[in-house]
Parts: sequence; C-alpha cells; structure tokens
Amino acid sequence: MAQSLPSHPIGVFDSGVGGLTVVRALMDRLPFENIVYFGDTARVPYGVKSVSTIQHFTQQIADFLLQQDVKLLIIACNTMAAVAADVVRAKSPVPVLDVIEAGAKNAIARTRSGGIGVIGTPTTINSNAYARAIHQLSPDKHVYSQACPLFVPLVEEGWLDHPVTRLTAQEYLKPVFVEQIDTLVLGCTHYPLLKPLLLDVTGDRMQLVDSALSIADQTAELLQAQGLANTSRAMPDYRYVVTDVPVKFQTIGERFLGRSLNRIDRVEL
Amino acid sequence: MAQSLPSHPIGVFDSGVGGLTVVRALMDRLPFENIVYFGDTARVPYGVKSVSTIQHFTQQIADFLLQQDVKLLIIACNTMAAVAADVVRAKSPVPVLDVIEAGAKNAIARTRSGGIGVIGTPTTINSNAYARAIHQLSPDKHVYSQACPLFVPLVEEGWLDHPVTRLTAQEYLKPVFVEQIDTLVLGCTHYPLLKPLLLDVTGDRMQLVDSALSIADQTAELLQAQGLANTSRAMPDYRYVVTDVPVKFQTIGERFLGRSLNRIDRVEL
Repeated sequence: MAQSLPSHPIGVFDSGVGGLTVVRALMDRLPFENIVYFGDTARVPYGVKSVSTIQHFTQQIADFLLQQDVKLLIIACNTMAAVAADVVRAKSPVPVLDVIEAGAKNAIARTRSGGIGVIGTPTTINSNAYARAIHQLSPDKHVYSQACPLFVPLVEEGWLDHPVTRLTAQEYLKPVFVEQIDTLVLGCTHYPLLKPLLLDVTGDRMQLVDSALSIADQTAELLQAQGLANTSRAMPDYRYVVTDVPVKFQTIGERFLGRSLNRIDRVEL
Repeated sequence: MAQSLPSHPIGVFDSGVGGLTVVRALMDRLPFENIVYFGDTARVPYGVKSVSTIQHFTQQIADFLLQQDVKLLIIACNTMAAVAADVVRAKSPVPVLDVIEAGAKNAIARTRSGGIGVIGTPTTINSNAYARAIHQLSPDKHVYSQACPLFVPLVEEGWLDHPVTRLTAQEYLKPVFVEQIDTLVLGCTHYPLLKPLLLDVTGDRMQLVDSALSIADQTAELLQAQGLANTSRAMPDYRYVVTDVPVKFQTIGERFLGRSLNRIDRVEL
C-alpha cells in the first residue's frame, strides 16, 4: 500500500445507515475532508450476530476500505467497535478510531458524580466494551449498562417522537434512573435521532453523550497531529458504498445525514 | 439426486427462528415425520433486504437442503415465500410448499364477508404476494395489507403481552379496522406468538389465520396424495442447522418451538 496523503479520504464504516450520524458530524467539523462510507446493508443488523461472525464481516469491510487508499479508518458501528476493533487495529497500516473509545473519553471528561450510564444494542452491552474502555482510562468510575434492542427498529420506523417510543424509553431507562448517574452515553449510532425524546424522558437527571460528535473532535485532533489534514479547499468528495440495493439506504440515510445522498455504489464482499 | 423416499426428512427453512412455529405445527400434525430445519441466523432478518439478495440467499438454502435428501421443501419465511418461491420451485426436483399459498387458501376458505386483511414485514407487504395469491384463487376478494415492522423485534424482545406491544398493535391495526374485514392473516411466522394479544386487540371484529397451522394441513394432504408419508412409527429425527453460533437461536427457538432444541449444527453457506 502507498503512503497515506492528506488528500486521501477518511474511511467510515457501519453495518448499515447508522454510521451516517458520524459522517454528518465529520462533514460539520471537517468540511474539506474527502469521505468514503461503507454500509453493510445486505447483512445488517450486526447487533444480533455472534462475535466470530461480526469479526469476520468487519475485517472484510476494513480490507475493502484500505484498498480505496483511506488515510484513517473510523469504526462508526458500536457493535463492531465492541467486538472487532482490536482485530482491525492489529492489521491496519493506517490509524483506527472507534466510537466506543470516543464516547468513553467524552463521558469521563464530562461526568461530575462519576456515575456513567451506557445504552446500546444487546451485543454492544453484553460485550461490556464501554465499561472496559471507561475503566481502563479511569478505574474509579461507576458504569451502569442497559441494552435497548427496540430503539433501532423504532428509529428505522421513523417513530422518533411517538408514544410507543416514549413508553419504550421509560421502560428501558427505569433501572438507569435508580443508579447514581449524571452522564448517559448513546452507545449506538441510531440513538442521536432519539436525542430530543431522550432528553425529555431523562429531564435534568443526566446529560447525554453523543459519540458521533466525540469522534469528529478526535478525528480533527488526530489528522492535525499526524499532518494528515486535507489542505485543499476544493469541494470534498463524498462516496457511499453499500452491499444491498441502495433504495432503502437512500431514503433512511438522508434522514440520518440531514442532506441528500448521491454517488451510492453497490458491491459484493 | 436419488428418488425421494417416505423415510426422507421434510426440509423447512426460514431466515431465522420464526419458521420454528411451522416446525411446531408439523410436529403436532405429523408426529412421525423426520424434519431438518434451516435457519439463516447469520443473515437474519430478510425483511429489510432487497429482492435480488433474498433470492440469492434463498436458493443457497434450498440447494443445501436438497443435498440432505429432503422429500419436500417448506418455505416457512413469508419474506422468502413472497419474493423467491418461484425461483425455488423452478429449480426443485421435490415439491415446494410455502406459507403464503397456505395462508391465502385458508383465508379464502374462512372469510364470510370476502374482506381479508394481511399483516407482515415491509418486504412481504410491499411484494403484494398475499394479495396476488388470494386474487389468483378468488378474484372477487377484497384484500387490505398492512406492514408491521416492529412486531418481529417486539416478539424477539419477549414483550408478548406488554403495554408497548399493545399500543403498537393498536396503531398498526387502526387502518385495518376501518376496512370491511372479517379475516386477518398473520403473514409472518413470528406473529403466532402475539396471537393472544392480537385476539384481544381485534376483539370480535375478525378471526385470525395462522399460516403455520395451514401449512401443516397442506403438508399432510400432499404427503398422503404422493405416497410420501413416513410409515415408520419410530421416534422421528429432528435436526436444526443454522449459520451463526446457536446460543441465541436455542434460547429464542425454544420459546417458538415450545420444547427443547437439541442437535443444532452450524454451517457456512
């Protein structure tokens, strides 16, 4: 593989559309960076699959993006970051950032009480990856994790402010409210779309940490430090690669991205 | 391939655990038949995938089961039946039954008003396969279809009698209640687990058609007619094949099957 250049794209990947919340944060924070996004829409969702299957699929995607000469890999899927980040890091010739590390760092910086809650898919939560990442950086923090398997289908149904979603959130957060927690990590890239509803349900009990915003900040720092920030002030190049026909990806994706989606290609892995 | 024998197993397949409601109905109705079940748990759910992807995956599974010398193929997944049954039938040397045809026939036999409602995953409903199957057999019937994308995740969460599920059902069925419908087809193999709740929400407005029961009746008729019913009165052989590690399949599967699950093998397609 050739040497990474500032003009090379950032590679962002996810099991489906969710990672577009990360792309959106990157576009806002770093408006001149080229980005190539990979969504494994033929095999989504990963949250219900086994560790070995997720590791296998994740490495296939990382290999594909490295062939596109990306200068940085961002694992925008919490499930993949939870169980496959080490595998990708071990093999990657370019830096690898992931949403779990980013969310963990941000939560540690922001908690006052030392009590951090994490919500995510069952695989992310069962992997215990957030608690491990937080404790590695700051062993004295109290972490309470709660799986919320219905949030992804509710977001994809578009019920962002529906009584069913509100009732579901109240049910899932009931045990979180009992703990001494002042900071809640949204440990799934779908969840930023539920932020208004979650802020309403949590009230002033806790602040929310959005890992999409956290990872955009981390990316800016890393590119600067390594001399890899794009110096061109031309319109950046945005490409989207998916594994299934892109109709649904486009419809739902534009809601996630908050802008129109062009240049979508389909590949088979 | 060798000639089919009565002692050969029935091959039942689905994208995940849902088809086990069909296996359960077969075990009750035909207690001496050998059964091999295939659940594509590494790639579940199919309901959100494109037609061409579903056709490709479905044919892979049918080929695998034919290699196991099945005497009959049962497509127990409504999504696969909706978009890939023709492809499988065109290539199969053994008879192929599918849940859509079975549900359509049963609904036609049972409706008095001629108004039939169908609920299912978005792909099943968008394919319009139930309406086509019903109109092909009985063109004067009025069919109203409604996608219920949240029912599968709600069943898998185990919220079979939860206020969230009740509220979701009321929301989805609202437009169905406006139509002149006396018969509602459960067009997804997960939905039989919601039967008590759905009966409560629909009240005496309509009867429910469970395609798992319908297909077990159809299977009994077909095996009898073709001289393929197993004559052995020995304990039958039940095998389960999945594409992901079977832990979750076993836990959720036993709820679907209503009995313990043994002999689960994992394969890669």
